[in-house]
Amino acid sequence: MAKMSFENHIMKQFDDELEEIRTRLMEMGGKVEQQVQNAVRAISEADSKLAEEVIIEEQVVDEMEVDIDTACILIIARRQPAASDLRLVMMVTKAINDLERIGDEAKKIANHAILLVEEGGSSKGYPEIRHIGASVSKMLANALDAFARFDADAAMSTIEEDKQIDLDYKTALRELVTYMMEDPRSISRVINVLWVVRSLERIGDHTKNLCEQIIFVVKGKDIRHK
Amino acid sequence: MAKMSFENHIMKQFDDELEEIRTRLMEMGGKVEQQVQNAVRAISEADSKLAEEVIIEEQVVDEMEVDIDTACILIIARRQPAASDLRLVMMVTKAINDLERIGDEAKKIANHAILLVEEGGSSKGYPEIRHIGASVSKMLANALDAFARFDADAAMSTIEEDKQIDLDYKTALRELVTYMMEDPRSISRVINVLWVVRSLERIGDHTKNLCEQIIFVVKGKDIRHK
Repeated sequence: MAKMSFENHIMKQFDDELEEIRTRLMEMGGKVEQQVQNAVRAISEADSKLAEEVIIEEQVVDEMEVDIDTACILIIARRQPAASDLRLVMMVTKAINDLERIGDEAKKIANHAILLVEEGGSSKGYPEIRHIGASVSKMLANALDAFARFDADAAMSTIEEDKQIDLDYKTALRELVTYMMEDPRSISRVINVLWVVRSLERIGDHTKNLCEQIIFVVKGKDIRHK
Repeated sequence: MAKMSFENHIMKQFDDELEEIRTRLMEMGGKVEQQVQNAVRAISEADSKLAEEVIIEEQVVDEMEVDIDTACILIIARRQPAASDLRLVMMVTKAINDLERIGDEAKKIANHAILLVEEGGSSKGYPEIRHIGASVSKMLANALDAFARFDADAAMSTIEEDKQIDLDYKTALRELVTYMMEDPRSISRVINVLWVVRSLERIGDHTKNLCEQIIFVVKGKDIRHK
């Protein structure tokens, strides 16, 4: 019996460790979600200070990635997880990479926000940024929610949201080209807006990756590139 | 003695498995390198057929990623690697992700190549594409070479190459904006060129990630975001 409870204790510790990396991934996800929202708001409200915050905070996201990654490697080395436990740990190492890249795109958006505020001028393209920004934020929130509940169906329907984002992105691109042709002096400014919508589209792609990873953990099926 | 040789056999098999994922990563790297070169050549030589090939071949790269990833998870589950072996396997799971994204950017370049051929017109921006394309191809070749030799110093100096690529990218962007302002009718065309140089810059970033992973395997140090 003593041995049994020792093993239980070991198992309990292992469970706690798995739970901890899940919690930390959720924290990182929440942080990144905030970054995306703030970056979009910084443009919308011409708020350079908020943009600066996003840029500084990106370091925190980077550190979270490295810390969680190290924790994952330690768990694999010490606990030798198998089957769904191993899938979970491998999923987390990939998911944090996508989250970090979303943070990176948020930082790029914040950089463009500062340039747009400095340049001044029209807010052509801002409604497009707000619209796609809202869709992308919602998609990311849904993906994190699906991860928290290990809900493969929710992950699957969140993937579908990316299609509309891609369509809206393409429409926005056409509109931006029209703005440039109508007013060539605005080209440099509109190019900044162009990079922002591109970053938002990339965030949608990374969020889609997150959803695929959730499905991989829950179902054990790799649906990438399908 | 019988037991000993059995263990040796097991170890030998493990070594073979590690060697195999290394070989397959190198194959995938070679394939991706070719994709990048062909995508750039497709633009330079207005060769839609070559661009189509790049687009079709991207599937092969995607399959390589999924296969190698599955092999890595199997090795972890079966062999329970530790220390540098575990670092190698974890590195491979990340490296194939960067290689797949490089393949993805090559596909995007190929798509733009087709649009550029269809539209016809001037080859404004092509020298920039050729120049950055050559630098990025060289950087990728150097990174794969550093991986083949597990050479952390070579990986470190390859990372440095990305700085020049970023500078050339920024110069190219300024030139492209000038072209658009000089001839607003060319805007739609130049935007295609803009996406191509952006993709090339992204390939440089992914190649930098590869180098950081090589350093992580060899030195056991995580130098990301440093």
